[in-house]
Amino acid sequence: MPDKTRYLLDEKDMPTAWYNVLPDLPKPLDPPLDAEGNPIGPEQLAVLFPMECIKQEMATERYIDIPGAVLDVFKTYRPSPLMRAKQLEKDLGLPEGVKILYKYEGVSPAGSHNPNTAIPQAYYNMQEGIAKISTETGAGQWGSALAIAGALFGIEVEVFMVKVSYEQKPYRRALMETYGGTVHSSPSTLTNAGRHVLKMDPDSTGSLGIAISEAVEVAAMNADTHYSLGSVLNHVCLHQTIIGLEAIKQMEMADLEPDVVIGCIGGGSNFAGIAMPYYYRRKQGKSNARLVAVEPKACPTLTAGEYRYDFGDEAKMTPQMMMYTLGHDFVPAGIHAGGLRYHGDSPIISQLVHEDEVEAIAVNQVACFDAAVKFARAEGILPAPESSHAILAAIDEALAAKEAGEDKVVLFNLSGHGHFDLSAYEAYNSGKMVDYDFAAGATLCENE
Amino acid sequence: MPDKTRYLLDEKDMPTAWYNVLPDLPKPLDPPLDAEGNPIGPEQLAVLFPMECIKQEMATERYIDIPGAVLDVFKTYRPSPLMRAKQLEKDLGLPEGVKILYKYEGVSPAGSHNPNTAIPQAYYNMQEGIAKISTETGAGQWGSALAIAGALFGIEVEVFMVKVSYEQKPYRRALMETYGGTVHSSPSTLTNAGRHVLKMDPDSTGSLGIAISEAVEVAAMNADTHYSLGSVLNHVCLHQTIIGLEAIKQMEMADLEPDVVIGCIGGGSNFAGIAMPYYYRRKQGKSNARLVAVEPKACPTLTAGEYRYDFGDEAKMTPQMMMYTLGHDFVPAGIHAGGLRYHGDSPIISQLVHEDEVEAIAVNQVACFDAAVKFARAEGILPAPESSHAILAAIDEALAAKEAGEDKVVLFNLSGHGHFDLSAYEAYNSGKMVDYDFAAGATLCENE
Repeated sequence: MPDKTRYLLDEKDMPTAWYNVLPDLPKPLDPPLDAEGNPIGPEQLAVLFPMECIKQEMATERYIDIPGAVLDVFKTYRPSPLMRAKQLEKDLGLPEGVKILYKYEGVSPAGSHNPNTAIPQAYYNMQEGIAKISTETGAGQWGSALAIAGALFGIEVEVFMVKVSYEQKPYRRALMETYGGTVHSSPSTLTNAGRHVLKMDPDSTGSLGIAISEAVEVAAMNADTHYSLGSVLNHVCLHQTIIGLEAIKQMEMADLEPDVVIGCIGGGSNFAGIAMPYYYRRKQGKSNARLVAVEPKACPTLTAGEYRYDFGDEAKMTPQMMMYTLGHDFVPAGIHAGGLRYHGDSPIISQLVHEDEVEAIAVNQVACFDAAVKFARAEGILPAPESSHAILAAIDEALAAKEAGEDKVVLFNLSGHGHFDLSAYEAYNSGKMVDYDFAAGATLCENE
Repeated sequence: MPDKTRYLLDEKDMPTAWYNVLPDLPKPLDPPLDAEGNPIGPEQLAVLFPMECIKQEMATERYIDIPGAVLDVFKTYRPSPLMRAKQLEKDLGLPEGVKILYKYEGVSPAGSHNPNTAIPQAYYNMQEGIAKISTETGAGQWGSALAIAGALFGIEVEVFMVKVSYEQKPYRRALMETYGGTVHSSPSTLTNAGRHVLKMDPDSTGSLGIAISEAVEVAAMNADTHYSLGSVLNHVCLHQTIIGLEAIKQMEMADLEPDVVIGCIGGGSNFAGIAMPYYYRRKQGKSNARLVAVEPKACPTLTAGEYRYDFGDEAKMTPQMMMYTLGHDFVPAGIHAGGLRYHGDSPIISQLVHEDEVEAIAVNQVACFDAAVKFARAEGILPAPESSHAILAAIDEALAAKEAGEDKVVLFNLSGHGHFDLSAYEAYNSGKMVDYDFAAGATLCENE
């Protein structure tokens, strides 16, 4: 029966290992470097991350087992559904041969794909006897996911939340606190980094760069505390591959192979999640799918950045990584897709774009919301602003095929729901939303 | 393997007919009456509702087919999962024989059970050529569900939103507008009812009663417009039985029969949804499950109200129904579970409580949030404030069994997620939440 709306995978068919793309990359990944340009070894990372994550960061095995305790928690919301966007196809007037499907990650307790890595990260830290994980958060999405994961494994979570969001988004803070997380306004007086910023500028509204510095400092200074990052790093991309591994099984249930696989991209984790398993499938000769990463024109790292070594944060506390970057001091305009406002990108995805294995495109905010509203009215689900980038690209791919009179199967990752993002929809509905084009010089943070 | 976390029903096993409890009630339901006390016939209701819903309101068949087009839309989020609350059981220290399971309706596009009836109601209206549906909404939950359903069937939705919520909850309004709904602040100048109120009190902040009057007036005055209600009525309870019908199949997958089935109750629809199919199962001799409806102490209709005829709204625009009521002019205190702030109750559930077929209990707000937070930290899912009432009762039932050394299988309906209700959690986390006990004289609306 290939014409269902929703393809559900049975719990017993859920993948039990992640796909590690490292051994299948066109060439070995350039190593992370310290501030002086020397390669960084595992022992230098051990102060921040659990050894399992560090091993995964440079693993050579193609598949890495998912721990049983992690699988148990995954089973509260995974396998996530694969959906056929039947009504959207109808509304777009697509011919029979053009199909749109999406993997829906909004069913997680955080409403997004983030728990897929927050849960294993919390687990590995718990296994190593770590009492607390520190992290940064902008709008609160990543902080929420980690707070949930911390609660589930009985591990403390301390979140440094960018001051402007801390004050403007008390409900996101309430969400983290409900799960037992501790949330600080950043810059805070709790760290040297925070105090330094406040001394220079007592009215600082904070930035993700400062919050990262504070969270890293807390982890570095306390033996029982580790740091956690929600995207960019190899082990984070690894954890997200469960999305694509499930999607492959579900597309087989639907008797379909995608011609194009699409995901939005900020740090790269949700895109890697859906796309890397298809990258390997292509290597196996089982797929010809194009892989398309969609970024905002306000922060067009892959399409307008340079491919070079750069720091992961503004304050240069992190290692340097080989990646596409707009510069570690770049502050993107205040688009509503806060999760896509990152100056750099996953080193894995950066290399694949550089080697022409992955395509990248940049799109405008208002067009994304046009697509999101069209999608919501057709399919019922309100998309997260980040996910709307993938929707726009999927619609464009489908319409191009219709135009060309070609068959095409479009698969995209709907990384989260928009129930936390209604202020963005309010701005859109009231006609107040504008575009910020990096190429036209829009680099200032005006809202969020 | 009866020890899974999540029991997913295949699409092909989704119920294709609703269970209609009317022929199985202890005695025939007392008819609705007009303001003069005369029984109301179908033709008088036809100005407000589609004929299919009116027929369902008094149907004698035990099963009523779900239209194919409705099933198609249901398949975007149904069957909903049945979950075993394994971590909560562990945290409560329950012995092997005491189990807690819940049906999770937060996976719908509205994040609650409401679309289960909004979708068929929109469909039946569309079938009858109705162009527009008017309705009222308090905090916006029901209005959102109907706006989604309207979008899916290409039917206009006009929502009268209580003024205080309209102003305080712009994001809920944004949600309805994103789906294409039109939202008015009520009292409005668009209706006689609204103008009358504004003439008396230009600063009126509105009430659900006034909003109902406005929505009903719009429907009564326009031939192409019908009115829709999200709870209380028989056809609404009917539509929600898909919850319990699915739950029975999933509990069979789990090889379990519940000893007690629990739901929160405001107008009665989500409780009827999970409980009525078990009521019938009991009649069939297949179940001994107790059915427990949980209401807030701030609005204890079933436990402290009178069983008599009363109007459904403050302004006496609706028929009189035989039900438990606190009086149609009763204004409950401003608890955060806005969906449970109704002076009356479903006539079906009222009769079953009166006939001792269904138990009713009333609980306090703060205790509900204690339970909700405990649940969120164990199971990952943040519950809606309404659903937290069912969680509290489920925990109490399980702990009582543990205490008594008895085996017990507890099943409750988790009617929605709390992603729209973070202000309530913020109040709870900051220690600002208080209890309102009707018995102690708390009847004033102070927040919401």
